[in-house]
Parts: sequence; C-alpha cells; structure tokens
Amino acid sequence: MTEQKHPRELHVGFIGVGVMGRPMVSNLLKAGFPCTIYDINPAPVEALVAEGATSASSAAEVAKSSDIFVTMVVNDAQLAATLFEPGNAASALKPGAIVIGMSTMSVRMVREAAARLQEVGVHYLDAPVSGGEAGATGGTLSIMVGGPPEVFERCKPVLSVLGSNIYHVGQNVGDGQAVKMINQLMVCVHNAVAAEALALGEKAGLDKTMLFEIISKSAGNSWIFSDRGSRMVSENFSPPKSALSILVKDLGFVVDTANNMGYPLILGSITYQLYKMASIKGWDKLDDSIMIKLMEEIAGLGNKE
Amino acid sequence: MTEQKHPRELHVGFIGVGVMGRPMVSNLLKAGFPCTIYDINPAPVEALVAEGATSASSAAEVAKSSDIFVTMVVNDAQLAATLFEPGNAASALKPGAIVIGMSTMSVRMVREAAARLQEVGVHYLDAPVSGGEAGATGGTLSIMVGGPPEVFERCKPVLSVLGSNIYHVGQNVGDGQAVKMINQLMVCVHNAVAAEALALGEKAGLDKTMLFEIISKSAGNSWIFSDRGSRMVSENFSPPKSALSILVKDLGFVVDTANNMGYPLILGSITYQLYKMASIKGWDKLDDSIMIKLMEEIAGLGNKE
Repeated sequence: MTEQKHPRELHVGFIGVGVMGRPMVSNLLKAGFPCTIYDINPAPVEALVAEGATSASSAAEVAKSSDIFVTMVVNDAQLAATLFEPGNAASALKPGAIVIGMSTMSVRMVREAAARLQEVGVHYLDAPVSGGEAGATGGTLSIMVGGPPEVFERCKPVLSVLGSNIYHVGQNVGDGQAVKMINQLMVCVHNAVAAEALALGEKAGLDKTMLFEIISKSAGNSWIFSDRGSRMVSENFSPPKSALSILVKDLGFVVDTANNMGYPLILGSITYQLYKMASIKGWDKLDDSIMIKLMEEIAGLGNKE
Repeated sequence: MTEQKHPRELHVGFIGVGVMGRPMVSNLLKAGFPCTIYDINPAPVEALVAEGATSASSAAEVAKSSDIFVTMVVNDAQLAATLFEPGNAASALKPGAIVIGMSTMSVRMVREAAARLQEVGVHYLDAPVSGGEAGATGGTLSIMVGGPPEVFERCKPVLSVLGSNIYHVGQNVGDGQAVKMINQLMVCVHNAVAAEALALGEKAGLDKTMLFEIISKSAGNSWIFSDRGSRMVSENFSPPKSALSILVKDLGFVVDTANNMGYPLILGSITYQLYKMASIKGWDKLDDSIMIKLMEEIAGLGNKE
C-alpha cells in the first residue's frame, strides 16, 4: 500500500480521453485532482492540458506518477496493450497503486489483467460505466464496481466525481463487467426486437409513428424503445448518438463469456448474428437504431436511405 | 343502421365474463348500460345478475337484444363458435348492430369474422385491450381500435367506460389486433430475455436480487423487466398475475401472422420455441415469469421449485 494521502492529493493517471474520457478528466480537474493523461489523439489532450492536465508521452510515463491509474480505452486489446506491451505501464506503476478499468471489457480479460498486476503489487478495480457521453459530462455515470472493499474504498473519492450511482456489485474483479454484460445483453436484444416489431408493423400496413407512440406507453415499452424508437421512426442515424460498433462489440463479449461458461445463450446469440449483419453492411459508425433498416431490408420493405 | 339512441339506451350484450369480462360488465352496469350476458361458467354470471345484468341462455339469445355485442372470449376458436356455430349469434343480431371483438385474436380471424358479419348487415369493430385485470377493474384499459370511423364513433360511449386510453389506430378491421400483436411480440421477447439475462448472471455468480435492482434502473430496463423481474427473483409463480398460457397463445398469433405475410420473424420465432418449452413442462397456469425457471433448467442451474 502507498502511504495514505488526502483524497485530493491522489495523483490520477488517465489513459484514453475520447468521447467518454475527455469529460471525465475535466470533472476530475474541476474537483481538484492532479491528472496526468495520455491518448494517441493529440486534440483532446491539448484541450485538457489547457484545463490544467499534464500530458505524458506514453502510458508508462503516466503510470510512474499515478496513485490511481484510470483506463477508458476501447476494448480488451487496448487494455492489454496499455498495461503489458512495450512501454509496459504495469511495471512502471508504484507498488500499491490501483488500476481502475472503466471501459466495457470481457470478464476474462479483466481477471487476467488483475492477476498479472497482482504479481507486481498493483491492485485492479473493475468499474465499467453506463450513461454514455451525457453521464460522463454531467458526472452522473452509473458505475458497477467489482473488487475488494478496501480497494473500492480508496477509489471512492475519484469514482464519486465521475458518477452518481456507484454500485459495489461483488468482491471479485469481473463482477462489475458481468453486471454491465447482463445490462448490455438486454440493451442489444431490446434494440433488435424494437426494430423487428416496428418493421413487422410496417409490413402489416401500420404507421410507424403511431406504433411508436402507442407502444412507448404500453407494456411492450423498454428504456431502449423509448430512446431508440424515435430515431427508428425518423431514420436519423447520423451523426450517431450511440454508434452501432459499440453494441456489436459488447454483445460479442456477452456471447464469448456465455460460451466460455457453457451457458446456452439463445436470444443473445441469434441477436448477435443480426448485429453482425448490420455491421457487415458498413453501418458501424451510424446510430445503433439503424437496426430498423436491417429489418426493413430483410423484410423486403425497400432501402429507404 | 339502427335508429340513433341515446348512448345509455344502447343495449349491450357481453359474451365471456371471466377475469377480464366480469369487471368490464360491472363498469358498464355502473355507468347505466343495460347488459345481457352469457358465459358457460355460471358463477360470474350469477354475481353480475346480482349487480343488475340480465342472464341469457346462449350467445344467440344475447344477440337478439343487442345494439352492441361485446366478445371477451379466449381465442379465435371461441369467437368463431360464438358467432357462427349452432345457435348462430351472427344471424340473430339485428341489422346495423355492432360486434366489438376485445380479446387478442389473429388478424386473419377478425378480418374473416368482419367479412361474414357484413353479409348479414352487421358491423365489426376490432378493439383488443392492454392493461390486464387491473385495467379491466379500474376502467383504465388501453384499447386499440381498428375499423371505420363511423362504427368507432357509435361504440365510443361503451369503450370510454371500459378504457382510459382509446387509440383509433387504423380504418381497417385487424389494425387494432396488429398493434396489439406488435406490443405482445415485445412483451414476450422482453420477458424471455429478462429470464435469459438473470440466469446468465446467476451462472456468473451474481446475486439475482442485486441484478434486478441495478438493471431496473439502467438502460437494460423494460416495463416487463420491472414488473416480472421481481417475481423472477422471488420465484413466486402461483397464483399467476398473468398466466403463461396467454403469452404462448399471443406469440403463436404473432408467428402465424408473420408467416402468413411472409415476414421473417427472427427473434419472435426463436422466442416462441422457448415459450412452447415452458408450456410443455406443464406451466401454462403459472405466472409467465416462470420463464426464469426454464432458463435456469436449460443452464443446469438446478430445479429450484
């Protein structure tokens, strides 16, 4: 363990200052935390330096000064590269430092990372988030934490700046990702069935706008339907509010995890095939409500875009 | 057309006074409508006679006195029997009378019934409901109406006693059933994926109660999850709040309708197989949240009941 510091004296390292990471660092700076950051994209780094952050030339350089080392990278591969590839942030971290993994990643990846960090005396806290760009900007993310209580306790000053609903869901690294995974499974299926149902309505000659208005007030509603349904009706897919690629990746993790556990994931697996079909069409960077277009095409309702 | 009567002078016939129909007739009686009723089960008929209803010995006898003839029967077969089999209510109805079909039935069935009634000068209004026993009792059902505006207009005094959200969704008989079908497709898939997701969480070692609490406040939530999820956690399946048999029937209609239209119903079809598996286990009369038990059994999580 490092010496106990006043929470505001904790040096925060932050890797990945994209759509999510950038406003998260802004909030940490405003709250008074000294932040050292790294990202391959220079534009958001420069903007955050203007707000008071320190820029480093690599993840390993960030690691040297960090009490708490936050990663908000895209996927498993980027976390592995950040921690263990040349530059090797893991070995640059001080013994007793804590890595907080806040991206959505596979349970297997975060457990492996935690085990490898433990060998060099570094802790890992599993803390994926929900709430998107709006939650990151407002400091109102939901954070699903898996890990030992004493590690969670040391990270609370940082997490409470980033999120407003912080759930300690389990004592094991990976429990946070598991809860996030369950949530994303439901998000992905709800989005796909919204598209399947609206396109069926169109095929039956019903008005899509009317259907959206009635179903969103009925027992068939979901959080996703009330959010994505309006974009399915307006066919407003660009710029994306939430890119299709994210759900393709997240549902891939769910399928992978279920397969590794020997769990028969029936609806999740068939839904994943539909997301891959949409991805293959080149729609990765469009809004994930584009699933309506996939269903309309499958049903021969014509290419409307 | 029959002569125009003051709304409260409309004689209402009502076939099927079960869980839904009985409180609906109570509300019509309280609103001052003369009601003649028929059901093969004598108990609710006697109770309603005590409230002021007139009992008839057959559907055809009800038909003779009806300006508006409401059917709240179980399925397609019961509607066909009520209207067209020996006793033959269809031919006993006065020219200009209106049959309101309020059960969930197939689009094909209600269109056939409407065409056959038209031959004897009788109108059909398609008006399935959502809201369950609570909505029927409180007079707060959602009613999805398909049919010509002038027929709908004549039925409004009756419908407005039974429901609080009355949507005229289309000019064609069957449009109401089509909207209900879209809603039920989403209800059925949401319920099944809730079970798949919670059982996956259990398999991953997570606490089901914790999962329910977090997901019901997150983007993965649905109306069905927030309702059925708590019963999936408590495993409280009997007495049912909503019997599994209803969703098995409703999703069967959706699959049948999609197949007749040549619509590729991917998620709905695979979900239907899951509901049939649960039905085959003998769980038809249990609460439809029993889908969690199916998923737990499929995943080898043990028979918990």
